[in-house]
Amino acid sequence: MKYGARNKLKATVTSVNKGDIMSLVKFKVTQPGEMASVLTTESVEDLDLKPGDEIMVFIKAIHVLPVKE
Amino acid sequence: MKYGARNKLKATVTSVNKGDIMSLVKFKVTQPGEMASVLTTESVEDLDLKPGDEIMVFIKAIHVLPVKE
Amino acid sequence: MKYGARNKLKATVTSVNKGDIMSLVKFKVTQPGEMASVLTTESVEDLDLKPGDEIMVFIKAIHVLPVKE
Amino acid sequence: MKYGARNKLKATVTSVNKGDIMSLVKFKVTQPGEMASVLTTESVEDLDLKPGDEIMVFIKAIHVLPVKE
Amino acid sequence: MKYGARNKLKATVTSVNKGDIMSLVKFKVTQPGEMASVLTTESVEDLDLKPGDEIMVFIKAIHVLPVKE
Amino acid sequence: MKYGARNKLKATVTSVNKGDIMSLVKFKVTQPGEMASVLTTESVEDLDLKPGDEIMVFIKAIHVLPVKE
Repeated sequence: MKYGARNKLKATVTSVNKGDIMSLVKFKVTQPGEMASVLTTESVEDLDLKPGDEIMVFIKAIHVLPVKE
Repeated sequence: MKYGARNKLKATVTSVNKGDIMSLVKFKVTQPGEMASVLTTESVEDLDLKPGDEIMVFIKAIHVLPVKE
Repeated sequence: MKYGARNKLKATVTSVNKGDIMSLVKFKVTQPGEMASVLTTESVEDLDLKPGDEIMVFIKAIHVLPVKE
Repeated sequence: MKYGARNKLKATVTSVNKGDIMSLVKFKVTQPGEMASVLTTESVEDLDLKPGDEIMVFIKAIHVLPVKE
Repeated sequence: MKYGARNKLKATVTSVNKGDIMSLVKFKVTQPGEMASVLTTESVEDLDLKPGDEIMVFIKAIHVLPVKE
Repeated sequence: MKYGARNKLKATVTSVNKGDIMSLVKFKVTQPGEMASVLTTESVEDLDLKPGDEIMVFIKAIHVLPVKE
């Protein structure tokens, strides 16, 4: 099975907080590896991103999709 | 400075591939820590997610926002 | 009126579940037609996507925008 | 294998258009079924959504994730 | 016509830059008004958001959907 | 500090509505400036977008990320 997403992490669930409609699931990443970001070339040039740069990466929790085998 | 996103990772850029409009940036996560996902409670119940579960997490590269200090 | 989105479906609402902040709306697609996905070219090559392939497509419910005339 | 997404469709790829960084993949949905949208309860009330309503649904192509078995 | 999105702005297109698959469109907001953000309650508490706070808001260009009448 | 997002607005929080898992924050944009949208070139051509066009722009509240200094 193959997925059309650049970022695939192995993780272990640490907590599940169920709300009425939405739930919040936390997990510990157990095998990170390389990640990827797609952004406008304009932003890359504004940030002047180049190999070796130390950055912070932000991901809204709503964009994280869990899959269970 | 504080951000309204659950997932904040420290990373080092490994490659930058500039296209005409969009670019693809890869990085190595140097400090992962805990992550979080928000999804419908229905999905949590379908997946039967609970602490200790081993999962895979997918994130489209388009949802990853780099910040540089 | 024209919209900057590739995927436009006609649908009939089947249920509405209102929560405190977020709600979950279900609907039956009554006129599907062709759909489209944008992803990194790297992912397309990893998946080796080509015409005729049978695939599954996933869309988080949060990315689905209803419009009512 | 189970996925944390409400919307899962079976589809057949009809075309693949590879760009430098991003690609556009089109497909025909061969088995639609019920779909779901999560939105703010305020929006549900603005739209006055209720069972039986005929709506249009929009999804940006960037939010559609293909999976291949 | 009514839309299931909290943020609706009137704008004038200032430039269109067409790429192979994706394009970048810029516009000047001519009538802003009130906007809204949905985030986890945990993030709201981390940020300690309250009426009167001055904030910055970030939106990736990929999440902005233009509609033309 | 620099961000990989095209759209950065200054705003003042006007209300905070905390739910169990998700919260809704409203704000008034105090300094709008230019904004940007990335969409498929096909959509740009369907909409026939060109400088001077008056458009509406829609953004789901879930895609708006607040940052506080």
